[in-house]
Amino acid sequence: MEITLKPIGIIHTPFDRKEACPIQSVYSEKTRGTIEVFSEHASGLKDIDGFSHIYLLYYFDRAGKIEYVRPTFLDEEPHGIYASRHPCRPNGIGMSIVKLIKRRKNRLEVEGVDVLNQTPLLDIKPYIPRFDVFESATDGWLTDKDLRFKPTGRE
Amino acid sequence: MEITLKPIGIIHTPFDRKEACPIQSVYSEKTRGTIEVFSEHASGLKDIDGFSHIYLLYYFDRAGKIEYVRPTFLDEEPHGIYASRHPCRPNGIGMSIVKLIKRRKNRLEVEGVDVLNQTPLLDIKPYIPRFDVFESATDGWLTDKDLRFKPTGRE
Repeated sequence: MEITLKPIGIIHTPFDRKEACPIQSVYSEKTRGTIEVFSEHASGLKDIDGFSHIYLLYYFDRAGKIEYVRPTFLDEEPHGIYASRHPCRPNGIGMSIVKLIKRRKNRLEVEGVDVLNQTPLLDIKPYIPRFDVFESATDGWLTDKDLRFKPTGRE
Repeated sequence: MEITLKPIGIIHTPFDRKEACPIQSVYSEKTRGTIEVFSEHASGLKDIDGFSHIYLLYYFDRAGKIEYVRPTFLDEEPHGIYASRHPCRPNGIGMSIVKLIKRRKNRLEVEGVDVLNQTPLLDIKPYIPRFDVFESATDGWLTDKDLRFKPTGRE
């Protein structure tokens, strides 16, 4: 079975190089980006304005080759790719939760982007706290890790 | 640009018909399912056991045709497809957060599944509360909606 996808838009961010790109939205809270949804898909943005946060699903178009067990950006230990969010994964789908600041027609201004400039956008879904907040979920192998930067001012 | 994906596994659930399938994990908290990861990808599951919750990304292989603005399962009002999680969407990627109960080699027993039996699996990512919990996020157009079933006992 093969599944063929086509980007529905492009994610514009200040990060042109991997080295400059934060590893998670929480490390780039104030970083603004623009989600450009191609005009043929723009009607699907109706009512998105009411959500404060959205999921972006996108394609890791500049990832290296797949490595099933590897160190991540957070520590030096090798972890399974499905226990991490590293880009070098089968199917190469990335996911970020960003804050929606403003919509201007087919463009969404967002805050907290952690993806490379010109990343192909695959989907947008609303973040819905009563479906998506699991307060007591565990952090797995991240439990004892000090974050390199402390995420503050989460809204 | 075309992106070609191949399933990395299959999601086994008790729901063979759309009519029987709950609309969100929170409505099927106690429903068990099994995530079968094909053996060639199974090494990527290392360390997943430590997480209590995981994201499943999958392909809506039995969705109808794309409708950019349509009523959802939650109310009769038409909403933009990117402001909802309805299956009839460009690229047809679905996302669910489920509770990880147990891993047996390349099989994950999970709770809270809301997808059709035999759904093709595209990716698994860890749910990491310090990255993914946005307590004060807004519910958008769902704000005033009574849920058809009250999600209880969220863990």
